[in-house]
Amino acid sequence: MSYRAPLDDLLFAMRRAAGETAFGPGGLYGELDAATAAATLEEAAKFAETALLPLDRVGDRDGVTLTGEKVTTAPGWREAYSLWVEGGWNALSAPPGHGGMGLPLLLGAACTEIWNAANISFALCPLLGQGAIEAMGIHASEALKSAYLPKMISGEWTATMNLTEPQAGSDLAHLRTRAERAEDGSYRLFGQKIFITYGEHDLAENIVHLVLARLPDAPAGTRGISLFLAPKFLPGPDGRPGARNDLRCVGIEHKLGIHGSPTCTMSYGDNGGAVAFLVGRENEGLACMFTMMNNARLSVGLQGVGLAERATQTALAYARDRRQGRGASSDPAPIVEHPDVARMLMTMKAKTAAARAICYLTAAALDRARLLEGEEAQAAQERAGLLTPLAKAYSTDIGCEATSLGVQVHGGMGFIEETGAAQLLRDARITPIYEGTNGIQAIDLVTRKLRLSKGAAVWREIDDMRGDIDALTASNDAIFVNIARRAAAAVEAFERATDFLSATSDPRGFEALAGATPYLRLFALARGVTLLGAGALASHRAGDAATRKRIVTARFFADNLAVAAEGLERATVEGGDSLIAGQALLTAGD
Amino acid sequence: MSYRAPLDDLLFAMRRAAGETAFGPGGLYGELDAATAAATLEEAAKFAETALLPLDRVGDRDGVTLTGEKVTTAPGWREAYSLWVEGGWNALSAPPGHGGMGLPLLLGAACTEIWNAANISFALCPLLGQGAIEAMGIHASEALKSAYLPKMISGEWTATMNLTEPQAGSDLAHLRTRAERAEDGSYRLFGQKIFITYGEHDLAENIVHLVLARLPDAPAGTRGISLFLAPKFLPGPDGRPGARNDLRCVGIEHKLGIHGSPTCTMSYGDNGGAVAFLVGRENEGLACMFTMMNNARLSVGLQGVGLAERATQTALAYARDRRQGRGASSDPAPIVEHPDVARMLMTMKAKTAAARAICYLTAAALDRARLLEGEEAQAAQERAGLLTPLAKAYSTDIGCEATSLGVQVHGGMGFIEETGAAQLLRDARITPIYEGTNGIQAIDLVTRKLRLSKGAAVWREIDDMRGDIDALTASNDAIFVNIARRAAAAVEAFERATDFLSATSDPRGFEALAGATPYLRLFALARGVTLLGAGALASHRAGDAATRKRIVTARFFADNLAVAAEGLERATVEGGDSLIAGQALLTAGD
Repeated sequence: MSYRAPLDDLLFAMRRAAGETAFGPGGLYGELDAATAAATLEEAAKFAETALLPLDRVGDRDGVTLTGEKVTTAPGWREAYSLWVEGGWNALSAPPGHGGMGLPLLLGAACTEIWNAANISFALCPLLGQGAIEAMGIHASEALKSAYLPKMISGEWTATMNLTEPQAGSDLAHLRTRAERAEDGSYRLFGQKIFITYGEHDLAENIVHLVLARLPDAPAGTRGISLFLAPKFLPGPDGRPGARNDLRCVGIEHKLGIHGSPTCTMSYGDNGGAVAFLVGRENEGLACMFTMMNNARLSVGLQGVGLAERATQTALAYARDRRQGRGASSDPAPIVEHPDVARMLMTMKAKTAAARAICYLTAAALDRARLLEGEEAQAAQERAGLLTPLAKAYSTDIGCEATSLGVQVHGGMGFIEETGAAQLLRDARITPIYEGTNGIQAIDLVTRKLRLSKGAAVWREIDDMRGDIDALTASNDAIFVNIARRAAAAVEAFERATDFLSATSDPRGFEALAGATPYLRLFALARGVTLLGAGALASHRAGDAATRKRIVTARFFADNLAVAAEGLERATVEGGDSLIAGQALLTAGD
Repeated sequence: MSYRAPLDDLLFAMRRAAGETAFGPGGLYGELDAATAAATLEEAAKFAETALLPLDRVGDRDGVTLTGEKVTTAPGWREAYSLWVEGGWNALSAPPGHGGMGLPLLLGAACTEIWNAANISFALCPLLGQGAIEAMGIHASEALKSAYLPKMISGEWTATMNLTEPQAGSDLAHLRTRAERAEDGSYRLFGQKIFITYGEHDLAENIVHLVLARLPDAPAGTRGISLFLAPKFLPGPDGRPGARNDLRCVGIEHKLGIHGSPTCTMSYGDNGGAVAFLVGRENEGLACMFTMMNNARLSVGLQGVGLAERATQTALAYARDRRQGRGASSDPAPIVEHPDVARMLMTMKAKTAAARAICYLTAAALDRARLLEGEEAQAAQERAGLLTPLAKAYSTDIGCEATSLGVQVHGGMGFIEETGAAQLLRDARITPIYEGTNGIQAIDLVTRKLRLSKGAAVWREIDDMRGDIDALTASNDAIFVNIARRAAAAVEAFERATDFLSATSDPRGFEALAGATPYLRLFALARGVTLLGAGALASHRAGDAATRKRIVTARFFADNLAVAAEGLERATVEGGDSLIAGQALLTAGD
């Protein structure tokens, strides 16, 4: 099982997402020219392929070990993490100041895809750190920033997000972790957090925990949650890790996948209280945490893309090598020549390309929101908001699907752990769950994102899709016109479903929520087919060497996958009544 | 994680598949009345819930161990297997004579579902044994039958199927295992077989291997394959296991799931040749083996149904217990009240019911083929042939989907192995692969089964579906008429796709094979919605207590799942060209 970062595809997706002129003088990314971006990506790929990929199986096999309070990662992981920090990879897309390189989030997105494809368990550590860095940059005091951000940005110290408690998973209103004010203006934390990724480990000299907790006089519910920073070691006067803080890992989980990454139960304040510092203002912790989560949601989507890409490469290599079929008279054929195997591989390929296009478009929108001003920035921010649930849910759904198809292409060998295909499936299976389940993404889409600027955001996206369709139709080239026809059917189905949901009197009512998941999938099909179609056309016009591949992929998506759009529209618009009836049944335990 | 066999649902599905009058005087099953069938099923359920279910996690956790040539199963498994044999469960649907009870395959199917739901790793051993018993009953000499069948039927000796070799998986033409004629009329085997389920274990005193091998003067390809029986211990004059045969387990696989069952590499003839006996005639082994495989294909479909049922029960219990959501002011609600969670659960429920209905219909057709005569038997045999690929592929696909949704309903807890939801997903993942991959099932459907009696079999099935639709429409009840409308759309899409595939000049050509998988799925939707709809109507008319559940399930399937039919028709009929283009790309490695 191997993986080569598909640099050409990634650079193409980046150009499509940001615009051809974005990298270069006067473009969105100013002085970062395309060649530098490409060179950076190439270096990232080299690092992933040589340092991270070889440790992926080791991490899966050996997992992590908890001895007393110490967590030991798999052999070679410490060394790889040192190389990660030395290479400056951690600082890549961190904001400028405190050592951040401030490179485009779009470039960061492509790197995130690569690192997660090579070794999701490893890449998960910096992935969560990026969110913490961003939240600190926006909400923390200057003193906290100075003391922590340089080390967090360099990666010398890692960071965690402490949200979940046994009784409070997706719903944070019922958090019980307690914060008390200390006399010196700091706080003391008491409580237990579960599912803390890299809550304890031996990769770095210090771990910075961002922890949601409740002050004694806090209002009930989510309005009474504050965000705190509690380091494993309190920095001494020299800024180096000093006294051990009163927090510890008391258990690690035995998981289906991502064995290389520790998932910890953290206990705070068993011996008098964990010293902690407020980030942002009291009782406004949830808003601060959302900064981390939105960033992380796109990154988790990119994990899905990365795993789907790797599963596709692995399965294709196997299918070109493994021979079966065609009686004894002639030589058996590589199984890639069997139509059904080709169908599985093309499905993997097309969905990966669509998910990548959606994720990169989201990243580019975040860059535009940050780098532009006024209405343009506002529209870009809304676009990023609208597309984030899509980027997260669609990409992780297809990540699971592609890794499962990857097992299937391998036949019996796929079920044997040594082959590696099964690990990708096990690893991918967490991605539709964490950082907001995909069901929650769909609810976010229909309850909040559809209402952005009174619906203007989604109709701008529909206009954009219609623009792609018009360009394809105007080409007068039969292949593109056919893609346009399929895309138009999908976009029209999406429009009708959008009209339906927009007209519901209660956007949080059963009717809207019942259709949320099929609606999100319909959106992904419509956005996917238009992005792939427009990309193929652009590639054709530019005389790009990969044009044939892009056309074939877009066409396969249009003819075999986008055709599901009307069925999803039906389920969105007409499926609710039967679901209400079903729910009554389920609630009764029937 | 628990499981209760849904006896009411199973008995209902049995009655629907065989006809209300089948159990009773003058009915298909003659003297076996409904009460006896129900009592048998109840006992089977009790056995599964008390003896097999508690060992399922143990088997997953401890797996099996190979020490030298010996394979040890997990603690408690030997004892459970003794109880299995003592209880007479192994003989249940074995043909009469040699100790077989000759009960309906339909009743056997319901038991198979239950046993596999409780513990698929355990149930896999008798599952393969049933196929071997059937093949022996049809093809073996009387002498072989007398020596082996009584022990195989009682379960005192277990049986295996030895097909696969490293270079020959789905394609048996390239088998290399060699058979030599001995002077006493027996044979000697030499070669290696892989992926042999229960090839070695400590559950029983002897293991009967059915082995495909090639005689020195055999024609090349599949026409030169013969079937042999090679026992682990050669029976002595007293019929008891005597001399150890020259065959052994030389390795076991480390698998994604079904850890409780040993998957062995078997070596034959390392010390002069494994003594073996011909089953059927020389060079006609493939036909004999197909007897085993067809039986096993339906049973594997039932594994999918069983795992889907168990995943649904597990997830529903969790969703009714776990509370999340609804701010702090009011109590948090059980997550089953969240529409998106209800959607997942109803999807699991409806697909499980549809797959069960298809599998039981297949089993009932096999019974009719066996118990009736002339044209009726012929038509039933063809129906079983037509539905077998559906039963296998659809049920195992939805088994994977339901177990994956089961993980999702559990949220973060689903990813933790201790919860047990993840095990179901890992276990289910083999079922679309073994006994003919689901891709091969689809190819079997379009290349062979569609041509049965020049297409008469499929058109009879379409007539049957149309009959169900007419009955629903004629009810004049809005709920049933709506189901009829959805069903009609699905069946019409299936008819058009059938016309398209029937008209292709080359049934083994790319066009037919390219659409095979979407066509099979479309067939399953059409057959599923008509069976569920007709079942709900019958339930309604009979005033059955479970009527509401059946109506709601059928309606959910119609409104949310069957609506995918036209998209699948498009992919079947119009997706081929883009796949041809895609395959060229893939073959080039692009």
